[in-house]
Amino acid sequence: MTLHKDVMLDFARDARTGLDEAVFCAGKTVAHVAEILRQVEARAGRILLTRLHPDQFAALPEAWRNRVDYDALSQTGYFSQSQSQPHPQSATKQVAVVAAGTSDVAVAREAARTLAFYGESPAEITDVGVAGLWRLLERIEEIRSMKVVIAIAGMDAALPTVIGGLIGAPIIGVPTSVGYGVAEGGQTALKAMLASCSPGLTVTNIDNGYGAACAALRILRLSNA
Amino acid sequence: MTLHKDVMLDFARDARTGLDEAVFCAGKTVAHVAEILRQVEARAGRILLTRLHPDQFAALPEAWRNRVDYDALSQTGYFSQSQSQPHPQSATKQVAVVAAGTSDVAVAREAARTLAFYGESPAEITDVGVAGLWRLLERIEEIRSMKVVIAIAGMDAALPTVIGGLIGAPIIGVPTSVGYGVAEGGQTALKAMLASCSPGLTVTNIDNGYGAACAALRILRLSNA
Amino acid sequence: MTLHKDVMLDFARDARTGLDEAVFCAGKTVAHVAEILRQVEARAGRILLTRLHPDQFAALPEAWRNRVDYDALSQTGYFSQSQSQPHPQSATKQVAVVAAGTSDVAVAREAARTLAFYGESPAEITDVGVAGLWRLLERIEEIRSMKVVIAIAGMDAALPTVIGGLIGAPIIGVPTSVGYGVAEGGQTALKAMLASCSPGLTVTNIDNGYGAACAALRILRLSNA
Amino acid sequence: MTLHKDVMLDFARDARTGLDEAVFCAGKTVAHVAEILRQVEARAGRILLTRLHPDQFAALPEAWRNRVDYDALSQTGYFSQSQSQPHPQSATKQVAVVAAGTSDVAVAREAARTLAFYGESPAEITDVGVAGLWRLLERIEEIRSMKVVIAIAGMDAALPTVIGGLIGAPIIGVPTSVGYGVAEGGQTALKAMLASCSPGLTVTNIDNGYGAACAALRILRLSNA
Amino acid sequence: MTLHKDVMLDFARDARTGLDEAVFCAGKTVAHVAEILRQVEARAGRILLTRLHPDQFAALPEAWRNRVDYDALSQTGYFSQSQSQPHPQSATKQVAVVAAGTSDVAVAREAARTLAFYGESPAEITDVGVAGLWRLLERIEEIRSMKVVIAIAGMDAALPTVIGGLIGAPIIGVPTSVGYGVAEGGQTALKAMLASCSPGLTVTNIDNGYGAACAALRILRLSNA
Amino acid sequence: MTLHKDVMLDFARDARTGLDEAVFCAGKTVAHVAEILRQVEARAGRILLTRLHPDQFAALPEAWRNRVDYDALSQTGYFSQSQSQPHPQSATKQVAVVAAGTSDVAVAREAARTLAFYGESPAEITDVGVAGLWRLLERIEEIRSMKVVIAIAGMDAALPTVIGGLIGAPIIGVPTSVGYGVAEGGQTALKAMLASCSPGLTVTNIDNGYGAACAALRILRLSNA
Amino acid sequence: MTLHKDVMLDFARDARTGLDEAVFCAGKTVAHVAEILRQVEARAGRILLTRLHPDQFAALPEAWRNRVDYDALSQTGYFSQSQSQPHPQSATKQVAVVAAGTSDVAVAREAARTLAFYGESPAEITDVGVAGLWRLLERIEEIRSMKVVIAIAGMDAALPTVIGGLIGAPIIGVPTSVGYGVAEGGQTALKAMLASCSPGLTVTNIDNGYGAACAALRILRLSNA
Amino acid sequence: MTLHKDVMLDFARDARTGLDEAVFCAGKTVAHVAEILRQVEARAGRILLTRLHPDQFAALPEAWRNRVDYDALSQTGYFSQSQSQPHPQSATKQVAVVAAGTSDVAVAREAARTLAFYGESPAEITDVGVAGLWRLLERIEEIRSMKVVIAIAGMDAALPTVIGGLIGAPIIGVPTSVGYGVAEGGQTALKAMLASCSPGLTVTNIDNGYGAACAALRILRLSNA
Repeated sequence: MTLHKDVMLDFARDARTGLDEAVFCAGKTVAHVAEILRQVEARAGRILLTRLHPDQFAALPEAWRNRVDYDALSQTGYFSQSQSQPHPQSATKQVAVVAAGTSDVAVAREAARTLAFYGESPAEITDVGVAGLWRLLERIEEIRSMKVVIAIAGMDAALPTVIGGLIGAPIIGVPTSVGYGVAEGGQTALKAMLASCSPGLTVTNIDNGYGAACAALRILRLSNA
Repeated sequence: MTLHKDVMLDFARDARTGLDEAVFCAGKTVAHVAEILRQVEARAGRILLTRLHPDQFAALPEAWRNRVDYDALSQTGYFSQSQSQPHPQSATKQVAVVAAGTSDVAVAREAARTLAFYGESPAEITDVGVAGLWRLLERIEEIRSMKVVIAIAGMDAALPTVIGGLIGAPIIGVPTSVGYGVAEGGQTALKAMLASCSPGLTVTNIDNGYGAACAALRILRLSNA
Repeated sequence: MTLHKDVMLDFARDARTGLDEAVFCAGKTVAHVAEILRQVEARAGRILLTRLHPDQFAALPEAWRNRVDYDALSQTGYFSQSQSQPHPQSATKQVAVVAAGTSDVAVAREAARTLAFYGESPAEITDVGVAGLWRLLERIEEIRSMKVVIAIAGMDAALPTVIGGLIGAPIIGVPTSVGYGVAEGGQTALKAMLASCSPGLTVTNIDNGYGAACAALRILRLSNA
Repeated sequence: MTLHKDVMLDFARDARTGLDEAVFCAGKTVAHVAEILRQVEARAGRILLTRLHPDQFAALPEAWRNRVDYDALSQTGYFSQSQSQPHPQSATKQVAVVAAGTSDVAVAREAARTLAFYGESPAEITDVGVAGLWRLLERIEEIRSMKVVIAIAGMDAALPTVIGGLIGAPIIGVPTSVGYGVAEGGQTALKAMLASCSPGLTVTNIDNGYGAACAALRILRLSNA
Repeated sequence: MTLHKDVMLDFARDARTGLDEAVFCAGKTVAHVAEILRQVEARAGRILLTRLHPDQFAALPEAWRNRVDYDALSQTGYFSQSQSQPHPQSATKQVAVVAAGTSDVAVAREAARTLAFYGESPAEITDVGVAGLWRLLERIEEIRSMKVVIAIAGMDAALPTVIGGLIGAPIIGVPTSVGYGVAEGGQTALKAMLASCSPGLTVTNIDNGYGAACAALRILRLSNA
Repeated sequence: MTLHKDVMLDFARDARTGLDEAVFCAGKTVAHVAEILRQVEARAGRILLTRLHPDQFAALPEAWRNRVDYDALSQTGYFSQSQSQPHPQSATKQVAVVAAGTSDVAVAREAARTLAFYGESPAEITDVGVAGLWRLLERIEEIRSMKVVIAIAGMDAALPTVIGGLIGAPIIGVPTSVGYGVAEGGQTALKAMLASCSPGLTVTNIDNGYGAACAALRILRLSNA
Repeated sequence: MTLHKDVMLDFARDARTGLDEAVFCAGKTVAHVAEILRQVEARAGRILLTRLHPDQFAALPEAWRNRVDYDALSQTGYFSQSQSQPHPQSATKQVAVVAAGTSDVAVAREAARTLAFYGESPAEITDVGVAGLWRLLERIEEIRSMKVVIAIAGMDAALPTVIGGLIGAPIIGVPTSVGYGVAEGGQTALKAMLASCSPGLTVTNIDNGYGAACAALRILRLSNA
Repeated sequence: MTLHKDVMLDFARDARTGLDEAVFCAGKTVAHVAEILRQVEARAGRILLTRLHPDQFAALPEAWRNRVDYDALSQTGYFSQSQSQPHPQSATKQVAVVAAGTSDVAVAREAARTLAFYGESPAEITDVGVAGLWRLLERIEEIRSMKVVIAIAGMDAALPTVIGGLIGAPIIGVPTSVGYGVAEGGQTALKAMLASCSPGLTVTNIDNGYGAACAALRILRLSNA
């Protein structure tokens, strides 16, 4: 009944910040998610859905579900009028999305899918944690060739520190909730990144691949301006 | 005796990352700080000293003290061979250093002094916290004209969220330890920034104006490349 | 067997504090909840049930269940002898219940339903978080016209700070558990509100829409006395 | 040199919220505090100084110091053009400032001094903690006669819960940092108040007598409107 | 295979401390619990089972299950050779088990069942939280007549403080995990009790009704010696 | 001026709980402490002062200072009309005050001095931590002969667990703030004691020797009744 | 599709550190686990799987499942080409795996299974917690005869401290998540071990039996070199 | 008076564990430290003093002070009958003490001085943090040649993880309290080490160079046995 009053999308965000609004779906009822899609459609807009749990996705009315390009691993969905890939993809790779371990792939994919939604094709480099240093060193030239680096790691999160000491590009750390015990759901990875001695490393919330991608997009637009 | 063995400066950092090494002085003995200056001089180098407490500075041998361009509020020092301002200053302002309150000025100055050490002249905008929103709105066009924004705030740290929703440039949040009780030495400001709904806001450690400046420099070099 | 001994309702609370007792159902067995309803009925009383989980509600004997006006989103129930709306509703709106995002609606509804139980018709204003500032500014005159404001927000919880700086009425902040990672189940929102620079903002427990409504009722009774 | 740029007072706050700006002095340099007084004087204004440490006060230039009505216990100062009591005092007492123990008096005094700055004469009731329940019961009628109650307590902070169950007026809890060990600088008192079963109790930051007074003023203005 | 090696019961505990061993079942496999019962039977002993979840109980082989006197609310079981009540019950009540709310009954019952296992018949007094003070005052003489008082409360846990100020007997506080948000699973109740100004109040772990009963038994044996 | 209003001693506590009031001096001004002594003298009473820092003691007016039997290590003082030892001392030792290390002696002395104030002569046994187990085993018979045991330990606080498994008497654990790093000011010792597998061990706040002594007195009075 | 790119095993680890790689399976998709086995098989290698939940194991394709020697209690699996026990077992026992309680057996088994994977046959000694000290003292000579001791305990974790004071061999503490309330998922056990007064006790993450076994293997190889 | 009763040294420790007792001086009165020296002298023993603050050392009676070989940076002292170096020094270096930064030298020196007290001459390698990776790689062969490695780091503490992946010897991590903000006095370094993916890394308390040295000594004795 009052459903439409519970939602007031920020359609002006694109004009102000250069990024369409995205919707964080965790904690929203399915009815609220559907109402959001209805409003986007009414504006002939497009929207990125994040943290859309498979159970939420499955509970969406089929008509909406069919029109969402959904990826279960990253829990992201693309919704737009005519095509699943809302923005044309750039020809060259400008962002490296580097993940320390296979368990960090879900977060890395959220970052990569967010970049793709806005037209960037990232280079995804996975399982290069520093406990086996040669794996990172083997890929470091590829990483160095990118404009921006997103470094994703859980547990002790040493990866961004080591990369940050090896390259000069902007580097954004994303701690993940991978681990147990003192990993504390990613708090230790987060604090280790923030306390890093690598100068100029900045950090997002735990598991926030979406936020890191947005930060990269802000930088790319500046650099390409 | 073993003093020189306790110090191994990373003179190659500039080549790798584009930033000369800086030295974090908190927790170092005065003898260690002096040994560092001695090694820099031997290499005819230059170095930025951060967290150099006035008591540490006062205890340095006079010969060294006289050659450091020291600022007590930000606890930073410039050391170089021939001049106090080690790098020539850029003609145009490209970075806004925005602080929520007068109590945040020490951290803002650390960021500004770091930028100046590497040749950038930032625009410093202070006391524009969002509890008196008109103050920020009055300055928002000036902020929007910059390439990078460093937003510094303590307590509830709402400033970067509001700015992040108003501009499209890269924005780096620096939480400060200003406040008492639940402010918890800056932990609340830090977490509030990390949990912000402003997409693409990245964050540094508490009071880390130096780190934010380095992140801004990484972005500027990319953008000016 | 000893069920009736496990419950001693505070029927005198209304006389002392002007508010009938309400019952917090989380952690109570269904048998205990039913016993409470039995005692209320025996006194021909009325009672507000909060945190009554849909599973608890579904497990209540049908006779009781049919007589509870239940709302699943807010997990609240009204129980009274003859009618579902225990108190007559006021003609004018005196309280604004303002929520930062759609995910905060469950808590907002708990506040609104509590107010309605005691006869107040609140104005519900949703999805006006400060990352899209225009949405709040568009509604600020409506908010300013109210006697009391309840401001509900999760994540960085900047909303009450900004509102508190724009109006002179009493303002009660309710942090929500919306968010992930450093949001820490609402702890960050709570601390950000408590550390706010907006003078005179007071705060309730996380997700405690019921408590905020009670605080508003205490103020309204004073103001209407 | 840039001192005046570091301060931008919110002189419009009174018009928006009905409260002149106050200045939180902890963490500010003495030069910044003096600059603030200079700006207030230039506007022929008045200002409340909070958390002005005796050492800061003693370091102020004598000319300024002589014109501040300073109270060392509460660390508050009144600054205005012609008189120490900036607002005329109300004839009747409308607010009770109730403190659990003698150690809580500094915080109670901050609340009382803030109320007096804005013209309210509070009733101060001290050392009525609930471990000796008769002391509170002896004063409860006096407390019940007030429009608003500020309840101040450290350690286990049971006082506001007990008062909240005995009266119907708005009640604002202020946790204090009194105690040791698990008292954790007031965190336990804060959380105990927030978790209280007394419905409608709202809470401020630890030791924030100033904030509680502002909340009381917001309520009084409404009630006297 | 190695099951019997994983268990080494402390059959000598009774001789050393006057209390038979009890077994904490949470985290044990059903096979381990069954092995423990087998060893107890082999010694013709008796044992108290605590934290035996209904699911664990249901999964026990029927032969064992039939011989355990199980109470689901408190998750306790009595196992002995010939009778369900292993020790004869005392004629007089010496211990009051006082619980603040109906939600605290599960913990109160664990304490009461432990006392009964060792032969004590406690007085159970429930729902006397201090937000409705008259309920406690109505029962205070009964409480005062007991040799030992166990006071059980969650949330802000003010009950033991108030009781402790009214009686001279030994008083043991048991914090419960009842509550949400800042209640933090009982941490706030625990700390509030430990920080209490009631002199001589001692405390157990959260929800540890068993431990409080054991402490009471130690005192009773001393007092009856 | 209002000094006498800031203090309302609980002279009735003795009648209610069997223990004279004691005054916790930390956080009180010297003027407040002196006012308390004045009120006690006016009633011809006696009082135990705890946490009276040597600096506070030294700042007391000499007349008062001369009449306080002060012990700097435990920071306790006895104040009474005619004699320093306010209660006659018992002939036999009934309480063991057992401390794990020499660093715990200050807390042990607070317990011992509190017991002595109320007439008990405790057995003090020090430096028997379980990392050198023979030291404890050498004294265990002496400990076992006591009616009540107070076990004091910092760091990992294993002492009370081991004692609790060896004796049947009531045992009260007092964690101390001795240690560094993860000792976290006594939090680890506190939690280790609360999580102990020794059944019936109860615990006080960190460094709270006074509270443990009061708990022991409550038990002794019961046992001697 | 990109599955093989998400995995980059560190096959060179054995050469560098003397230990084959092991794979931590928690948080990995079943598809990723299967891909890892595929790569190991392609190299004719062997691998230890840890934290492989029974649900993950059950979801593996049958062909892979049949070739894993899986133990559900410890959640470990052995995978190798021709045999389930990848390394030949040593004839003599050199490591004691000592667990405080039956609830700690899952972690002890993870340590034991890791040792066995690399060829060591440990002595497993269980249920010797120090609340019943005789049980440990009965086994202490056996423990003293080992080259390395792994001591596993939850709750207050006093076991490693007591053992560490009785023997001279290297001792590695493993805290477990056994317990409730202040046990805080093993944090208290962890901190108690780290704060232990037993000199030379080192510690692993909570529940990290695998890590302790690896540390023991590093020591054994040194000692047998 | 009772000073000698407050101290019971564990002279038998050497026989049990192969290590003479050492005394942790923080929190001890100077009188207690002197009493300890008196007892050691009476037994013609030797003792290592740790955490002996320069102020404590300066306050010792001169006779004792002259006989302590004191190092202010590490706050350690050697006390023995006839010579300052109580044990003869080994000819070969078997332990590497590796520190990430110059600020970590105080902790590294505590480890080195402890090793030297018991006769080991460690290799001290400093300022090889991984943000400048070449510094570590330059020294890795030297590190690999040692029997045991102690790796000391603060902030994000990535050093032990990287070393642990490069060598096969036992490695002991020591987190330091170097850093600010989220470094949280070494808690982040500690947790990062415990959560490390380097298998077999074990860890000591924050700043516990003494404990790491003792662990290394336990291993060396085994390896040299």
